[in-house]
Amino acid sequence: MRQSQLFTKTRKEAPSDEARPNDGSVGQASKNAQLLIRAGYIQKEMAGVYDYLPLGLRVFKKIENIIREEMDVIGGQEIFMSSLQEKETWEKTNRWDDSMVDIWFKTKLKNDTELGLAITHEEPITRMITKHVQSHKDLPFSVYQFQTKFRNEIRAKSGIMRTREFIMKDLYSFDKDQEGLDEFYGKASDAYVRIFDRVGLGEKTYKTFASGGVFSKYSHEFQTICDTGEDVIYVNENKKIAINKEVNTDEVLSDLGISRDELVERKAIEVGNIFKLGTRFSDALGLLYVDESGEKKPVVMGSYGIGPGRLMGTIVELYSDDKGIVWPKEVAPFAVHLVRLGDSEAVVKFADDLYTDIRKQGVEVLYDDRPLRAGEKFADSDLIGIPVRFVVSEKTVAEGKVEVKFRTDNDSELLTAEQAMDKLKN
Amino acid sequence: MRQSQLFTKTRKEAPSDEARPNDGSVGQASKNAQLLIRAGYIQKEMAGVYDYLPLGLRVFKKIENIIREEMDVIGGQEIFMSSLQEKETWEKTNRWDDSMVDIWFKTKLKNDTELGLAITHEEPITRMITKHVQSHKDLPFSVYQFQTKFRNEIRAKSGIMRTREFIMKDLYSFDKDQEGLDEFYGKASDAYVRIFDRVGLGEKTYKTFASGGVFSKYSHEFQTICDTGEDVIYVNENKKIAINKEVNTDEVLSDLGISRDELVERKAIEVGNIFKLGTRFSDALGLLYVDESGEKKPVVMGSYGIGPGRLMGTIVELYSDDKGIVWPKEVAPFAVHLVRLGDSEAVVKFADDLYTDIRKQGVEVLYDDRPLRAGEKFADSDLIGIPVRFVVSEKTVAEGKVEVKFRTDNDSELLTAEQAMDKLKN
Repeated sequence: MRQSQLFTKTRKEAPSDEARPNDGSVGQASKNAQLLIRAGYIQKEMAGVYDYLPLGLRVFKKIENIIREEMDVIGGQEIFMSSLQEKETWEKTNRWDDSMVDIWFKTKLKNDTELGLAITHEEPITRMITKHVQSHKDLPFSVYQFQTKFRNEIRAKSGIMRTREFIMKDLYSFDKDQEGLDEFYGKASDAYVRIFDRVGLGEKTYKTFASGGVFSKYSHEFQTICDTGEDVIYVNENKKIAINKEVNTDEVLSDLGISRDELVERKAIEVGNIFKLGTRFSDALGLLYVDESGEKKPVVMGSYGIGPGRLMGTIVELYSDDKGIVWPKEVAPFAVHLVRLGDSEAVVKFADDLYTDIRKQGVEVLYDDRPLRAGEKFADSDLIGIPVRFVVSEKTVAEGKVEVKFRTDNDSELLTAEQAMDKLKN
Repeated sequence: MRQSQLFTKTRKEAPSDEARPNDGSVGQASKNAQLLIRAGYIQKEMAGVYDYLPLGLRVFKKIENIIREEMDVIGGQEIFMSSLQEKETWEKTNRWDDSMVDIWFKTKLKNDTELGLAITHEEPITRMITKHVQSHKDLPFSVYQFQTKFRNEIRAKSGIMRTREFIMKDLYSFDKDQEGLDEFYGKASDAYVRIFDRVGLGEKTYKTFASGGVFSKYSHEFQTICDTGEDVIYVNENKKIAINKEVNTDEVLSDLGISRDELVERKAIEVGNIFKLGTRFSDALGLLYVDESGEKKPVVMGSYGIGPGRLMGTIVELYSDDKGIVWPKEVAPFAVHLVRLGDSEAVVKFADDLYTDIRKQGVEVLYDDRPLRAGEKFADSDLIGIPVRFVVSEKTVAEGKVEVKFRTDNDSELLTAEQAMDKLKN
């Protein structure tokens, strides 16, 4: 798209309320919110609540699509459930009362019936599935959605990584028995590894042992090593093994065959989690099936969550420099930033033609056609952080070429349009 | 996809709470909810709140994509704003107090700060745009989103056509002056006409004169003629002109050059609306720009809404028969329903190969590979309402052919796979 059409503007300074932590404490402010707001990706609506602007929504959708593709690979069926929730369903699992779950946003119908805004969806999905499962022949399957969760956090911090309203991909699996759940759990875990690889977080992300529940010894968090993370984990980088704080006990270490001295303490961001729910929700909500011998049994469930917004925030925390964001290729809002310097007829024609060519080849391009000085354009370009920049100026046009620079490099090279496009595709 | 994998089941009867109106009155129940629930497209979470199941989400996304394409054609930039809303912004336009707007769902932060759940987004978007517009050079542009609206309706009725929680496409335009607004309003109106045409509602939908506001004589609703509609409009079908109840006065008729006796009273469903907001919101929230002569002026706005879910419900109200839904091609969950009868090796191989072929050609296909009787399969197929059915049975395979039947036809014909695919594409 033409940058002159983009309604958002960049800012030189982060807004003052993002330049310090929201809770008034002394400490490092949220880098992701600062950079994303300055570059025009997001806007703060209030503490812990953000809007996605055109550039931000593009990145968000790329992450969402990667997650969707991997959920489809493991057979997930996409649905979309409501945010408004009935009290009765959640009372059955003892998760309605504020003394049990203290992050509800609650509201009321006109007739004073109390409703909640979904903090998660285990209860409504379990109830919904009761209407579609009778027999063992109806199992196994898995269902997922990208839907808003509302969480009434006392303190909102960490920019878009911990918010009061956010879209989450939550997948739920439904199996006949523990064996089926274990098998699917493995597949989901592999899908998560592929997701983190694809969005550019693979190397720094660890499948981390966390406490399980009644139905399994452990659950797993996916934790991305990052100095600004809220969590603390213990890692052996060579063995690619990690455990979280909850399970950092001698018993667990011995169970996993790790010694304490091979682990290093690191700060990390939880970017996903997978959990064997067992029959906790199916027992409470009556999700039963008739097995091969005619016996009624509870369905065995698992849940698997990833927040695309938190991934986006984590990527910014990890990939930026003093000039701005440095997006990994797969999630960048555009593949190339075409920057035109000058407005002579020759330069405009060369740049306009190149813009048309790039789009014809199906490559997403942001075209800076604005009448600004080179310094301002480069500053904006670095801040926005598209992986490759093509510069068209009097100098490059004189040679019939374009200057190509990767966001991660300091040097540029002068190439023909064809060479530049080849460069982009490799 | 293979129907044996689809987790949803069809039902012979509508659930009892959809078989009568929700408000306890005597009268016709909601046909759209009954059919959509029976066929497994949606599920009721509570009165006025529905979940979209895999088939339903497919239809919803098709409608959403058609709307998105047309919003992109007129230059709309997509964003995604929050549902949680701050009181202060809405107090400035006098739309916070329950005595002014009686459909709010309200909630609270832990520190007792009152929040609202967005009933619409004029206020927050106007406030957000103040941070990106300074000069006349920043105008005009338009911004849209697909986002959830919450409306605390006293009575929820009409199935998915009037709900307490629904996704709406709302677009907002920002212009320097009335002339700019008028021009964009015309373009948006044309885009709406294309949307209704594409989803199959064009012929029955009228751009209907409705009351304007301080800033324009009229606004427009798009009303689809339907006997189960909640609205009443007055129509001249030949002239393709319509007015709503509010403006059915002698003064307006004379203004529009219509005589009362050429209009027929019809029931209708409001499927979209477009409204010139003028400077109501920019005045209240300080959205100003500096014009060519250095003077500060308020931005002139318009708003343009369509609910994809309401379109989906309207389509079902209009296109169904006693056997089920009859989807228009463009919004059907799949292009073709491949139904296999029997499970002999020859039949399975023929059907499996055809399934693979169809998908290879990029055509979306639901493959009924379930071990059920022909009668059950045909009943499900009619209920689900995919536009074309391919039947593969012992009889058809003996001739190396497939039986092709359109949902709207009574007759079928026996064709080769190649002929059948040609039929599908025309």
